[in-house]
Amino acid sequence: MSQTSVQTKYDRAQLKNLYNEVRAFSEKLCQPLEIEDYVVQSIEDVSPPKWHIGHTTWFFEQVVLCQFAKDYQPYRKDFFFVFNSYYETFGERVERQLRGTLSRPTVKDVYEYRHEIDQRMMRLFDNVSDKDWNEFSRLVEIGLNHEQQHQELFVTDIKYNFAMNPLHPAYTELSKGKKAAMLPLPEAKFVEFEGGLIDIGAAAGKFAYDNETPRHQALVHDFKIMDRLVTCGEFLEFVEDGAYSNADLWLSDAWALLAERKWDRPLYWHKLDDGWQIMTLGGMRPLNKNEPVSHVSFYEAAAYARWAGKRLPTEFEWEKAATEKANSIESGNFVDDGFLHPVPLNDQSSVLKQMHGDVWEWTASAYLPYPGYSPEPGALGEYNGKFMSDQMVLRGGSCATSRSHIRTTYRNFFQCDKRWQFTGFRLAE
Amino acid sequence: MSQTSVQTKYDRAQLKNLYNEVRAFSEKLCQPLEIEDYVVQSIEDVSPPKWHIGHTTWFFEQVVLCQFAKDYQPYRKDFFFVFNSYYETFGERVERQLRGTLSRPTVKDVYEYRHEIDQRMMRLFDNVSDKDWNEFSRLVEIGLNHEQQHQELFVTDIKYNFAMNPLHPAYTELSKGKKAAMLPLPEAKFVEFEGGLIDIGAAAGKFAYDNETPRHQALVHDFKIMDRLVTCGEFLEFVEDGAYSNADLWLSDAWALLAERKWDRPLYWHKLDDGWQIMTLGGMRPLNKNEPVSHVSFYEAAAYARWAGKRLPTEFEWEKAATEKANSIESGNFVDDGFLHPVPLNDQSSVLKQMHGDVWEWTASAYLPYPGYSPEPGALGEYNGKFMSDQMVLRGGSCATSRSHIRTTYRNFFQCDKRWQFTGFRLAE
Amino acid sequence: MSQTSVQTKYDRAQLKNLYNEVRAFSEKLCQPLEIEDYVVQSIEDVSPPKWHIGHTTWFFEQVVLCQFAKDYQPYRKDFFFVFNSYYETFGERVERQLRGTLSRPTVKDVYEYRHEIDQRMMRLFDNVSDKDWNEFSRLVEIGLNHEQQHQELFVTDIKYNFAMNPLHPAYTELSKGKKAAMLPLPEAKFVEFEGGLIDIGAAAGKFAYDNETPRHQALVHDFKIMDRLVTCGEFLEFVEDGAYSNADLWLSDAWALLAERKWDRPLYWHKLDDGWQIMTLGGMRPLNKNEPVSHVSFYEAAAYARWAGKRLPTEFEWEKAATEKANSIESGNFVDDGFLHPVPLNDQSSVLKQMHGDVWEWTASAYLPYPGYSPEPGALGEYNGKFMSDQMVLRGGSCATSRSHIRTTYRNFFQCDKRWQFTGFRLAE
Amino acid sequence: MSQTSVQTKYDRAQLKNLYNEVRAFSEKLCQPLEIEDYVVQSIEDVSPPKWHIGHTTWFFEQVVLCQFAKDYQPYRKDFFFVFNSYYETFGERVERQLRGTLSRPTVKDVYEYRHEIDQRMMRLFDNVSDKDWNEFSRLVEIGLNHEQQHQELFVTDIKYNFAMNPLHPAYTELSKGKKAAMLPLPEAKFVEFEGGLIDIGAAAGKFAYDNETPRHQALVHDFKIMDRLVTCGEFLEFVEDGAYSNADLWLSDAWALLAERKWDRPLYWHKLDDGWQIMTLGGMRPLNKNEPVSHVSFYEAAAYARWAGKRLPTEFEWEKAATEKANSIESGNFVDDGFLHPVPLNDQSSVLKQMHGDVWEWTASAYLPYPGYSPEPGALGEYNGKFMSDQMVLRGGSCATSRSHIRTTYRNFFQCDKRWQFTGFRLAE
Repeated sequence: MSQTSVQTKYDRAQLKNLYNEVRAFSEKLCQPLEIEDYVVQSIEDVSPPKWHIGHTTWFFEQVVLCQFAKDYQPYRKDFFFVFNSYYETFGERVERQLRGTLSRPTVKDVYEYRHEIDQRMMRLFDNVSDKDWNEFSRLVEIGLNHEQQHQELFVTDIKYNFAMNPLHPAYTELSKGKKAAMLPLPEAKFVEFEGGLIDIGAAAGKFAYDNETPRHQALVHDFKIMDRLVTCGEFLEFVEDGAYSNADLWLSDAWALLAERKWDRPLYWHKLDDGWQIMTLGGMRPLNKNEPVSHVSFYEAAAYARWAGKRLPTEFEWEKAATEKANSIESGNFVDDGFLHPVPLNDQSSVLKQMHGDVWEWTASAYLPYPGYSPEPGALGEYNGKFMSDQMVLRGGSCATSRSHIRTTYRNFFQCDKRWQFTGFRLAE
Repeated sequence: MSQTSVQTKYDRAQLKNLYNEVRAFSEKLCQPLEIEDYVVQSIEDVSPPKWHIGHTTWFFEQVVLCQFAKDYQPYRKDFFFVFNSYYETFGERVERQLRGTLSRPTVKDVYEYRHEIDQRMMRLFDNVSDKDWNEFSRLVEIGLNHEQQHQELFVTDIKYNFAMNPLHPAYTELSKGKKAAMLPLPEAKFVEFEGGLIDIGAAAGKFAYDNETPRHQALVHDFKIMDRLVTCGEFLEFVEDGAYSNADLWLSDAWALLAERKWDRPLYWHKLDDGWQIMTLGGMRPLNKNEPVSHVSFYEAAAYARWAGKRLPTEFEWEKAATEKANSIESGNFVDDGFLHPVPLNDQSSVLKQMHGDVWEWTASAYLPYPGYSPEPGALGEYNGKFMSDQMVLRGGSCATSRSHIRTTYRNFFQCDKRWQFTGFRLAE
Repeated sequence: MSQTSVQTKYDRAQLKNLYNEVRAFSEKLCQPLEIEDYVVQSIEDVSPPKWHIGHTTWFFEQVVLCQFAKDYQPYRKDFFFVFNSYYETFGERVERQLRGTLSRPTVKDVYEYRHEIDQRMMRLFDNVSDKDWNEFSRLVEIGLNHEQQHQELFVTDIKYNFAMNPLHPAYTELSKGKKAAMLPLPEAKFVEFEGGLIDIGAAAGKFAYDNETPRHQALVHDFKIMDRLVTCGEFLEFVEDGAYSNADLWLSDAWALLAERKWDRPLYWHKLDDGWQIMTLGGMRPLNKNEPVSHVSFYEAAAYARWAGKRLPTEFEWEKAATEKANSIESGNFVDDGFLHPVPLNDQSSVLKQMHGDVWEWTASAYLPYPGYSPEPGALGEYNGKFMSDQMVLRGGSCATSRSHIRTTYRNFFQCDKRWQFTGFRLAE
Repeated sequence: MSQTSVQTKYDRAQLKNLYNEVRAFSEKLCQPLEIEDYVVQSIEDVSPPKWHIGHTTWFFEQVVLCQFAKDYQPYRKDFFFVFNSYYETFGERVERQLRGTLSRPTVKDVYEYRHEIDQRMMRLFDNVSDKDWNEFSRLVEIGLNHEQQHQELFVTDIKYNFAMNPLHPAYTELSKGKKAAMLPLPEAKFVEFEGGLIDIGAAAGKFAYDNETPRHQALVHDFKIMDRLVTCGEFLEFVEDGAYSNADLWLSDAWALLAERKWDRPLYWHKLDDGWQIMTLGGMRPLNKNEPVSHVSFYEAAAYARWAGKRLPTEFEWEKAATEKANSIESGNFVDDGFLHPVPLNDQSSVLKQMHGDVWEWTASAYLPYPGYSPEPGALGEYNGKFMSDQMVLRGGSCATSRSHIRTTYRNFFQCDKRWQFTGFRLAE
């Protein structure tokens, strides 16, 4: 979270605009919701939408206003308790799994809080001293990136809540893209890269999370990487080959988990009388074999790779490949595009397709600090560093990520068993 | 649930009125709610208000309309799944602890369902054949009693949800009654009753649940029973005497539970800097020593009795005493009175005070079938009989019970550790 | 545990003899064991044999020697911690479920402890003053009854440990009795009893546990009771009728338990390729349809009764029937007889057969205090009274009970789900 | 587990000798045990000693004899079930946490099994064909390495079992070494290494586990590493500085674990009235500040490093440092030396001390496959590869490891929360 740097690149008007854009997008995402949808939390991993709306607001109040607004009077002290997520520095908070048991503050209360904080921020944009501007703008930028992350969680949490509901409601109509469906899909190719010493991580001068820094040299060996994502059709072969009951393919922890959770397919897949269906943000629909498989855990990605006689790429291989031959971020399928679902391959503009967008790609790399990394002291040091155990790195962003949020060096991370994000993979060898 | 009997006492107009009254009262109880309040479920024991509203409606659809309306078309088939509670006969249902994870159907959807079923019922009241009237009216009467039970649960569930919320919202302003507060409270007296053979249970000819039948002879020995309920002030002495850490006073299961749940006071009691406060449906307020203690488990009632050198009355002693010398149901503090909280003793009209109303009274009797009892076959046989293990009987109704719902022979039942109902006790010896 | 008072009936020589007999029987039961068998505890309910050997010894040291031996020096202070069971009065102790994790003290250590305490007891028998004799002999008698209860637990715990072992070892060769096997079994008859006021409980003047007192009047209604126990053959019909998957037959808690524990037959029944086998203390052997069913829970007994259109007898009905028309204790199948298994009916000496011995019989009565009961103060008050919640009464003793331990008024008690004791039932109506 | 191939270096006599030596050492380790000690399992992580004795024997029967002995007749088929650990390939097995509930087979049975298998192996050493020799000897070598790993587990499991026993028995008298105790300890120095491309992993031609292969190039950056292990005295400062209640120092998962398990010190540390004591294999003794800290988890090592403003070394840094400047394996404190405890620094023969022996050293590296790694197909492929998720690498061996078992390239691995092995650490920067 501590940026590598430096000179903020924003002037007051620019940053204000950016603030308003990002903040508005959160509210736009809420438009399809009924009030009831704001309240529920179907498992501990997900949070109620109104909590996201409040928590992203709390961040600006706690981290920015409390520090820079003169004689700051908190909006409501108990909101500090209700809307803190996991920052030990900021004190006690509602236990995570209880967020969905709070009917109050109401949605209206939360929006009032949000809008009041927005106004206070607007005033602060104008009033903050030049001396403070650098630090202020740095924290605002972090707050906006933080909000974009919660926008992605918002989308995936809603999907999970609706998928667990026996009525299987749709969040919204998925825009376009549903078309391409069953066009012939080209066979995957493995593109070769030569090994050597490469530069990894975010360069100074642009915003990046602390976990992408410092930029440093790394060694990669010769490798090949698949030129597109593994599809639902391919993964279906794995399912139908009995892979979920073949112990040889699975990591030991994975095998125990399969038994415990009775997994035998990706999350959101249903086998109905008339064939495979998947739950999407647009409701239930038939499985499209050509679209990238999503909502698989690291364990399933690794088992698939073993079944296919391949492996997953390391995060360094992925970053090298993405830097040199991938589709542009501009061309990727992000939340801005409104599909809200991975789409079948329809882009021939690059050697490596679907690297940016569609689904987060599991890598073979554990989420660990880069050489020379140190988290900044204080609350924001809790942002990334304290999660550096027992998680794997994912790369590339998904159809629920904001385009302006992603970078080729971006490191996302989740535990091996997590599936509620848009998570897929490609193979390497 | 199978009545002891027979000849329905209602004509069509009467029963229709009763139906409309009871159904309207459920909606009246909802008036203070925000939409968000309808959705949450803070622990498995409680249900979301909108589930109560839907489930009581489902009962009429599933049990009455499906049987008596010609060529009945279900309102929505998936509502049978969403709104069944525990009736194995009626098939699968949402797992109890997940009721609070469903944002859909919305509150509006549920009310539309409710009102449509009400209209169908109105038509059926007019159309049901004379031949079917007896069975129809019997089931409607059960359905209304069922709904009254859910009205009580609605009140206690809301209280629990709000009490768990760190903002401690109030459900409504508690009407009057808050006054009497600190008037001097008379010392409790123990009223003597002579033992002998007595008649226990509901007589034929009036509505009663099957668990109150058959009426039968029972033997009670000479006993004395306290002329009022144990108060908060008295229970506070027990708390302050260190009773919660004195193993001698507790049943073995209770002692294990105290350690596990870290109980050291009744539910809803808070010790703040400025003294004891309790959470009520009107929000937090100072502990009133004169009001009956409530929200204690059987375990706590039994431990208090041992501490006081007394015991709890059996349900037969209670019923004999209530029949002979208790306050009238008319004089009791029930939900109809709007206090929504037990009130300090202010009635001298009877020898035994507060027997009907204020709080359910734990007895020393396990919840078991009366001699000759058998549950009726089919779904309604699941109503009472299948819970006859590991529960204790409570008598007399509470400030959350409808006056028209209670009877002196009424047997309520909960597990020894439950505290979220308005449950208190009086002593015997 | 507080006797119904009275003059002790033993002189010094008699009680010494009794002490030696009972103590010797514990060791006799251990003869078939390997050292390893003394150590294990396969579930929390059971205890390691060496713990039983030590705990019964501890009881005499803690309750008798510490009180009556002059200037008593504990054998080893840490044994007070290791061998206390559940007496809060006597302080901290090893958590129950960890008893099987202690390899030390060794078996040899425990026997040395046992024999030293026996010698100290022998000396105390000679030295205790006449003044103390009454209280001393009362406590010794309790200690011996306590040891007999642990002898029964020892037998059933060994059975459980061996049954859970994949090698299914035999504890010993079951003596005789295996013969009678498949002789024709007479159809069960229901014997009528007339209701009325009867005396229940232990009379003064003879040893009894406090939970059998005070003797008091109770009312029973007319009833019929089965003249023998329900057999394995009859229970097999219930199993094969699909009863374990028919929700209608089960109490609500039972139904949840079946799902959780995947029960579909009594404990120790195995369906192998060549038919039903049951695990006995003599190892695996074919199911004998004529022997009484055993190792069923209260839930299963109650479900069977409902399936058969009958019910279980109350403990008062059972006691009346046992007093008037049952087989004698002398004729019953007890641990002294060495069968260590319930035997098929082979006794025509009484109207009601198998009432005493073979298996403990579940009754329809909750384990609650008799009118006027109060536990004695202090440690021995923990013996029975503190378990008076959420348990059911069983009557009659089993093939693992000592003949001299049982009485017609004896009240055993277990939770509804327990099956590792020799527990069966007969029906009533 | 698949070696890096190559010609076996053993002739028949040599390998037979090696077999007899390693097998004899297992029995030597058992000499201090009572029969009871062989049976218990105090937590799921540890196994009963007799299970280790049986399981290491089973390995030779299942993996070697079944494959190479002609017309092989299993010793006892049910032992395949009882003594399999986690090999899915070899079928069902006793659930791990139930190993301590099996009193049979007895210790005598297990030794008979062991000795019979040893005799069969001796015959097979003579009879196996030249053609099979290579594969046979490869598997025997693996079996012996496998047995050495279980010898280490045996030692640490016994320690855990005894430490959990309230009597705190000693396993044996710790030999010598207890002396050096409180001599002045030199301040730690940080030794510099220059970064660059280095060769990592086991070279072909010598035995190594598959997880150490293939040997490959890796990049390390400039680093410094501590010249000795962190001591108990240093760790005590961390404890006394309140580190266990300072959230800033801990990984997120670690912080949750501290709360759940109430950790506030290393395993086996006790704070008694007369100061800090630690439980050792020789029983309780005062904490020696100069000995290396042991029985800390990765979480505690990482928190200490953060507290000290340093970090843990990566496994590549460790391997480079160990290759270039570490004490020799010969000079390390291993199980062969009989100390059975880490000893204070007393060796000046190398720049980096205590790298080999004393305690396993946590590294900052996740346990993941080396580039080009693939597990061999079949059962032995389960040996290492399937554990490559959510574990961290440890290096260097401990006072419970056999000297002949360790290599500088050896990769041990445990979950972040494990503490029952001799696990310590040194710092890097």
